[in-house]
Order: sequence, then structure tokens, then C-alpha cells
Amino acid sequence: MMGVPRDLVLAVDVGGGTTKGEVTAADGAVLAAETIETPYGEAAFDAIEDLGARLLDGLPADCRDRVARAAVILPGLVDPEHAIAVFSSNLGWRNVKLGSRFADRWGIPALIDHDVTVAGWAEWRHGAGRGVDDVCVLIMGTGISGTLSVGGRLVRTPPGRTGVAQAGEYGHIPVRYRDGLPCPCGNVGCVETVASGPAIARAYAARTGRETSSAETVFAAAGTDPIARAVVDDAVDALAAGLLGVLHASCPELVVLGGGLARAGDLLTEALHTRLTELLRVTPVPRVVLSEFGIRAGLIGAAHLARAGSLR
Amino acid sequence: MMGVPRDLVLAVDVGGGTTKGEVTAADGAVLAAETIETPYGEAAFDAIEDLGARLLDGLPADCRDRVARAAVILPGLVDPEHAIAVFSSNLGWRNVKLGSRFADRWGIPALIDHDVTVAGWAEWRHGAGRGVDDVCVLIMGTGISGTLSVGGRLVRTPPGRTGVAQAGEYGHIPVRYRDGLPCPCGNVGCVETVASGPAIARAYAARTGRETSSAETVFAAAGTDPIARAVVDDAVDALAAGLLGVLHASCPELVVLGGGLARAGDLLTEALHTRLTELLRVTPVPRVVLSEFGIRAGLIGAAHLARAGSLR
Repeated sequence: MMGVPRDLVLAVDVGGGTTKGEVTAADGAVLAAETIETPYGEAAFDAIEDLGARLLDGLPADCRDRVARAAVILPGLVDPEHAIAVFSSNLGWRNVKLGSRFADRWGIPALIDHDVTVAGWAEWRHGAGRGVDDVCVLIMGTGISGTLSVGGRLVRTPPGRTGVAQAGEYGHIPVRYRDGLPCPCGNVGCVETVASGPAIARAYAARTGRETSSAETVFAAAGTDPIARAVVDDAVDALAAGLLGVLHASCPELVVLGGGLARAGDLLTEALHTRLTELLRVTPVPRVVLSEFGIRAGLIGAAHLARAGSLR
Repeated sequence: MMGVPRDLVLAVDVGGGTTKGEVTAADGAVLAAETIETPYGEAAFDAIEDLGARLLDGLPADCRDRVARAAVILPGLVDPEHAIAVFSSNLGWRNVKLGSRFADRWGIPALIDHDVTVAGWAEWRHGAGRGVDDVCVLIMGTGISGTLSVGGRLVRTPPGRTGVAQAGEYGHIPVRYRDGLPCPCGNVGCVETVASGPAIARAYAARTGRETSSAETVFAAAGTDPIARAVVDDAVDALAAGLLGVLHASCPELVVLGGGLARAGDLLTEALHTRLTELLRVTPVPRVVLSEFGIRAGLIGAAHLARAGSLR
């Protein structure tokens, strides 16, 4: 084996709907890829093991030994240090100790980490936030959460506190706790109840009676349809309100918007920047840009994590 | 001079009303102290120079050479790296380049820094937040601002951006931008418009017609007077709302309440903790404690800064 370059990595992004695996080279070239439905409960971890094994075993013989490391990213609460899938309500996990099961099966070191944290880190370090030390990344889709980088370091929940929540749950800031809608988390008026993809679609449907619209179609219609515009403005207002605290606390220079909702494009970034400009007096208004990796940020981030060995 | 211990420091805390100077020993013992009224405009810096010189010259002969360093802390916007008093509306400064004037006059190295940043750092490193890596400190009085520490590091506004604002302006988070009171900053519904000392006194006076009450008397009356209780609850609600963003972004373990308003004591910390418990579902509720140094946090912090050489 001497002399074989270890220049490939295995990345697995476990989602509530599907799980995606890829073997990639240093330049991002994809050598093998597969997507499966994520089984509910602990069966998911068997499926992840099998997925990784299939991807590795399917590689050409001269590539198999070039895979240096794997990274598996999980939703919900994750304890990377102790390799525990702490909690996912969508997938029905609670305190699943993963130990070295992936590494044992695949024959390479395997890291686990939190999906949104890794996606936000990737956008910051390697994507739209590259070269900027103070960055807030929002990954927006069914839910809204993200990361914060301060002085060139990623903010992470302190070890030992991951059993409670992870840093970056921007979507659950109850910005309208006086008069907002109930959130599945048990709170009232969370950012997600107004600004998530499903919330935008629901608000538009409720006002028009047209049930089929997605958030994307609402954004697309906002230029000509005053109801769509009002729904978008309301979502952007809630998003801006959710950002006010962190903007005053740490003055990030840049806000990166990623996830599926970022498909709304410049309309979203410009509307958010405008609303923040209206709401900030003392604290500088950050630039607001779209993510570079879009919905692939998690998978790309997992590959970068596998390559780097940690979220540096 | 060989063999003389350099174990004393000069600390100067420049406030909108008064400026306090102290020479202290490593154990905090005060060897010399003086308080003056702060002159308006750039004359303040002559007065600071004179104050420091008087304190040093008044020391016993065997103490003068033991003073190792000075730290002068200023309100408003400060650029510590370039020794510039960037802006203070109260004191009428704009871009005052201090250079080495204090060091030249006093014959010792002299640092300058931002008063609240130093006060918050002192509470975190040496006071109520000692030993905790993730801490939010609020200094509450006429205004409300503070600091954030993440992963054992103080969050500071990145160099080059200090001309805009400093991190930690919690008092200017517009938590009631829809229906709040105007703030002198030009915004509507800032935390300070509800939760600062003057705002609490004003709200109570407006509801009762009794003009003389201070925030402290309102807090003291809250146990028996339902109007005082309602005013306190409203202030605590605004304070809690202002903290929601940073709590979700970085999950600090501890919130320290300092400044004059902290004289309200356990009533304030308990009320804030209760309100945060009501408003947080996904993110852990931090402990809320009173500051250790109270209104002396700035001066004590300046002495620690002079001793340490930087806000580490």
C-alpha cells in the first residue's frame, strides 16, 4: 500500500427524507454517489453503514485504498465528541451511541457531526463566507437554523451541553411571542412559524384559498401579486427580527442565506438587507448574500470535514 | 531602580458625569483615588492627563516607580488598537487621536479601551462569570450594553469596523419596533426604551403621576404595588426579548447583570430567569446572576487590563 495517495473521502448526509452518500476527490469531483430513503428509527444507522459500504466497495480497485476518512452528518441533536445521535424527533432517535460502528464497517476513520453546523461551517470556510471572520449562516428550508462565526472561530455549543440544544437555532427565536402562531416546539411566534418554506406556503394558501403553492412560487409571484408580496414581506420581517439579537451581540459582517428557500434568490437577500437597514441604527448592517453550495452544503461540508478532520 | 517590584497600576474610568482614577495593588488595595467631573469635549483628555499625574505624583516616593502600566477606559466608540476616541455623543468627541499622550505624560505604558467592554470582561474573567467560558454580561444603568464571551474568548468588534459600532449594544435591539417608544438613537422600541433605569422611572411616573420615583424605588415597591410590578414585568420582558437572539445563537451558560440597575438584586435576576424560562423551548435557559463588582466593574476592569496588558 505504500505510496498510495489518501486523497478521497466518503461523505454521508442523513436527512429526514433521504440520505445521500458520496465519495469525492480533493477537487470536489464525485467518484461515486447514491441516495436512499432514510429508514425511521435506529434502522437508519444500519442503512447508513450499508450505503457507505456499497459506495466504497463499488469503487475501482485502485481507488478503494485511497479513501482517507468518512464523515456522517446527522439532523437533530448530535454529540460529535462522544459519537452519539442524541435526539431527532423526525427520525425517532434518542441517545444512540454510535461508537466506532462506521469506522469498523468501512475500515477508515469516521467522524459524525451535526448537519446544519457542518453545512454552515462549509459555507463560511469554503463557500460564500470564505475569507470573512464574522459570519452568520442561515440554512432555510422546512426549518431554519444555522451557524455563527466570531473572530474566525465557529461558535459551537459547549461540550456537555449538547443534550439540551445546539447553538444556531435561529428558527426557534420566538420573535412574535405576544401574538404569533403556535410552533411545534411548544412555543408561540417562532421565526419558523412565519419564515420557513412551509409557513410561507401556508400563509399564502390561507390568504388566497389556493392550496398548492410552494414558498418558491410565492416568491416568484411577489413581483406582481400583492398578496404574495405581503406574505414575503412578513417572512422577511420575522427573519430580520430573529437576526437582531445576534447582530447587536457580535456584529457579523456577513449573513449567508442557504438551504432550499435560498432558491428565491436576490429577491430574498435584497428584501432582508432592506428590512435590516430599516431596523438597525446603532449596529452596522451586514451584507446579505446567497449561499454558494445551496442544498448541497451539508454533503460538501461533510467531505470538507472528512478531509480536514475537524471543523477548523 | 533595579529590584523595585512593578506591582501597581493606574486605572481611569471616564464617564459621562464623572471620571474616576485609582492606583491599586495586585490584591485590589487602593493606594490613591480621586474623582473629578468630566469636562465636555476634548478638554476631558487634558483633565484625564492631569488626574493621572496628580495620582502618581501624590504617591509615596517608594511607590511611584512601582506603577507598571495605566489603562484608561472611555465611553462611546473606541478604537483601542489605534488609541482613538472615535465617538461619544455625551462627551462631544469625534475621532480624537490620543496617540501616546497619556504614556508620555505619566512615564508608563498606557492602554485605552471601551468602558463597557472592559467592565463586562472583568465580570466574566474576574467576577461573577469566573471559570465559565460562555457568558453574556449586561451593564444596566442609564443605557444597557454589555459583552459576550464564547468558547472562552471575548467577542469584540473586528478591527476596522469600530467606526460603526461596538459589539454588545443589547440596549439598542429594537424588540418593540412595531409599537414601542421612540429611542434617542432614532429607532423605535429599543430595549433601553423599556428596561433602562430612566425608562423604568418614567413608565412608573407616567402611570401614577408621581414624578420622583427612581428605578430602584420602583423595584423596591414591586412586592406590594401592582403598578410597580407591572412596570418591572414590562422591563424584564423587554430585557428577555433582547436576549433571545444571542441565547439561540450561542447558548451562553450564564447571564450576569451589572451596573446600577443590578441594585434591584434577586428580584431582577429571578424575574429575568422566570421570563426566559417562559420564552425558551429549544435553547437552554441560562443561569442569571448579579455582578460581583457592581458599578465598580469598569474601574476594577481597567486595573485588571493594566495588569494583564490585554483583554485576555
